[in-house]
Amino acid sequence: MVPHLTTSLAGPLQEIERIVLEQRPEIERWFRTQCLEHEVPFYSSVDLRNSGFKLAPVDTNLFPGGFNNLNPDFMPLCVHAAMSAVQKICPDTRRFMLVPENHTRNLHYLQNVAVLKRILEGAGLTVRIGSLIPDLAGPTELETSGGEKLVIEPIVRRGNRVGLEGFDPCAVLLNNDLSAGIPQILSGIEQAVVPPLMAGWTTRRKSHHFHVYDRIAEQFAKLVGIDPWLINPAFSQCGKVNFADQEGEDCLAANVEYVLGEVREKYAQYGIKEQPFAIVKADAGTYGMGIMTVKSVDDVRNLNRKTRNKMSTIKEGQPVHEVIIQEGVYTFENVEGAVAEPVVYMVDQFVVGGFYRVHNARGIDENLNSPGAQFKPLAFETDCHSPDCGGNPGDPPNRFYTYGVIARLAMLAAAVEVEELVAETDALEVKAANA
Amino acid sequence: MVPHLTTSLAGPLQEIERIVLEQRPEIERWFRTQCLEHEVPFYSSVDLRNSGFKLAPVDTNLFPGGFNNLNPDFMPLCVHAAMSAVQKICPDTRRFMLVPENHTRNLHYLQNVAVLKRILEGAGLTVRIGSLIPDLAGPTELETSGGEKLVIEPIVRRGNRVGLEGFDPCAVLLNNDLSAGIPQILSGIEQAVVPPLMAGWTTRRKSHHFHVYDRIAEQFAKLVGIDPWLINPAFSQCGKVNFADQEGEDCLAANVEYVLGEVREKYAQYGIKEQPFAIVKADAGTYGMGIMTVKSVDDVRNLNRKTRNKMSTIKEGQPVHEVIIQEGVYTFENVEGAVAEPVVYMVDQFVVGGFYRVHNARGIDENLNSPGAQFKPLAFETDCHSPDCGGNPGDPPNRFYTYGVIARLAMLAAAVEVEELVAETDALEVKAANA
Repeated sequence: MVPHLTTSLAGPLQEIERIVLEQRPEIERWFRTQCLEHEVPFYSSVDLRNSGFKLAPVDTNLFPGGFNNLNPDFMPLCVHAAMSAVQKICPDTRRFMLVPENHTRNLHYLQNVAVLKRILEGAGLTVRIGSLIPDLAGPTELETSGGEKLVIEPIVRRGNRVGLEGFDPCAVLLNNDLSAGIPQILSGIEQAVVPPLMAGWTTRRKSHHFHVYDRIAEQFAKLVGIDPWLINPAFSQCGKVNFADQEGEDCLAANVEYVLGEVREKYAQYGIKEQPFAIVKADAGTYGMGIMTVKSVDDVRNLNRKTRNKMSTIKEGQPVHEVIIQEGVYTFENVEGAVAEPVVYMVDQFVVGGFYRVHNARGIDENLNSPGAQFKPLAFETDCHSPDCGGNPGDPPNRFYTYGVIARLAMLAAAVEVEELVAETDALEVKAANA
Repeated sequence: MVPHLTTSLAGPLQEIERIVLEQRPEIERWFRTQCLEHEVPFYSSVDLRNSGFKLAPVDTNLFPGGFNNLNPDFMPLCVHAAMSAVQKICPDTRRFMLVPENHTRNLHYLQNVAVLKRILEGAGLTVRIGSLIPDLAGPTELETSGGEKLVIEPIVRRGNRVGLEGFDPCAVLLNNDLSAGIPQILSGIEQAVVPPLMAGWTTRRKSHHFHVYDRIAEQFAKLVGIDPWLINPAFSQCGKVNFADQEGEDCLAANVEYVLGEVREKYAQYGIKEQPFAIVKADAGTYGMGIMTVKSVDDVRNLNRKTRNKMSTIKEGQPVHEVIIQEGVYTFENVEGAVAEPVVYMVDQFVVGGFYRVHNARGIDENLNSPGAQFKPLAFETDCHSPDCGGNPGDPPNRFYTYGVIARLAMLAAAVEVEELVAETDALEVKAANA
């Protein structure tokens, strides 16, 4: 089953798809050279929005948590890609410690951990799970939504190494986005940490990601000859917001106005009759917490207490002071009347699958990845590397290939972003050593 | 459907499988580091023999011609692996010229070319087919066994570049084993030729391959703690044989005796009651031409005219002067009573599938890849990277994983072998330049 794209404005997207299919050798060559220049993330997932007239990434996750939602037929693809990732990042490794999120009651998330563990084992690693849960007494068995057993164990630090009882891993693979801060126990260890600690939400910012994405999208658009706006959501940011104390409202309003203005101009240029909207969200964070949809400046003036509360803290109770204001991209894909949003999964430089978040109770201008958003996953039915170039734009293999291309642009942006974060941290460390 | 292994002597093989599964992290780590040290072939296929007490490669092909026999479900695996291979060898490439064998009447082979073309296109390349057929008038359409159309075109040389009419490729992918010699038109061109020209049968020798494999098998056996003989066929060689003129018979007899002696000793050590045998085959060549089974020295004394004729020339009418005498490994796998031999396919460092050659009319001590050997291909039903470590040795995913490991050993040997061939050629060129 493949979602229908129901919009009268699919012309520009069909155009993007046609161009992407036609210029595939040039595009793949470009990705190859880019992937040689940058160290791509071990794994990543990218949320896309497809409005028919625009196809753009709206979030790039460096700690993907939905491997359980992928088409099981593509597990061998995941294994190959993981072999390639391990070879690039830590070839001499035999043992990985996987560090998941602490929420042990989300059984679907636990199933993700189980699948991820199997993929890494498929790549030939011995994998055990080290938990950051404070005061975890000892090895604890959990059951996943798929009925699998998973043993989580307390992480033990010995000098500059971490491990588990009787297990000295060569590398640590984070599947925890560090929303609660960089854990002391992982700081300054000699083992490789993948992704690096500064890729967590303690130091990472969405606005930084989209600044880099601006450059990547610009380059790509020039390469294939399209308007970069077709694949890039306009955005701005505000650094000093305090929803609880109603501070920073003017900054927020001005930037909402700026973003809506940009969108209005583009909608006029392309003859799009929909109402422009923007998404205001925490600049550091995930899980769709601290997110609101705004259609005019009035929407951010005089926020009621409920909204202010909703916006003021995110995951792990972290307060929100920095927000990104991002062009809203309508979701015009649907499955049996329910809104469907594509998520593309990558391991190393390879697209290994994807799925749709299908949600009955949400609108086409809302975020589908939010607390309580009990989406039904719908796995992509074909892989994302086998377009049928004889077929038409919109045919599933071609649509998925195009999704894979746009997702890989966001993945490249994440690669550059993490390089910059690491360079920044290194520079700070040099300063500290000089001080 | 999976072949049955019918032998009372499966003990040692179950032991190899058990060891391979147990030591998988160590094995995969070893392969990772080996693959970083050596440039692995773009693609390769390895013929294995499984006698239950021994599992060994008997032939390694650098121009595999059976991609059409792989499980179509694993095409995305082939595409990922090809992306990886292209990235390593020629990242800046957009256009490949594929150079196939000249036998245009083998419709199954043409189907292989069609599948290979699709895999390369899946990796994002523009692919056209350049033929070495002399006096090919112009673009010629052929139909494959799968009913696909394939256009072959005459190769055009312009200075130090080759191409087709209106097509300037960045690299040449050979699917032609150069049994007829290194074609003048491809000599000294500035484009990358993959695999290098000296990997063709003009310069390649089976005995060289198995000399290198000796070292690799030794290392691997030491790593996992097994007798290397369990994965390595004994062999010897004769350099001055002329079957037509009955020359070199003594050399051949002495080496047959040597190989059979080695095997006898090992059979005694392991309590194997089967009769040792050896395979005599052309040291340079393929397609199972110039091959005979011998069980005693008498079998190579006083050869009759028919056998001498059979042995004296191989593909493209090349005379045979060098032979390899290789320990025969019994084939104890069968499907519904027919003998089944596994062939493992690799692209880059990845096992992308495999199939069995299933043959009704052949014996367990004969070569199944020979002219007129109308084998029925039986695709592996699972990939070779997903063993079920909870299962038993002999379960299909585990048996296939073990096949993949042994095949990768042969692939590594081919990598080292080609490195040595290239170094030799470079040294010769230096000498020529100095002269």
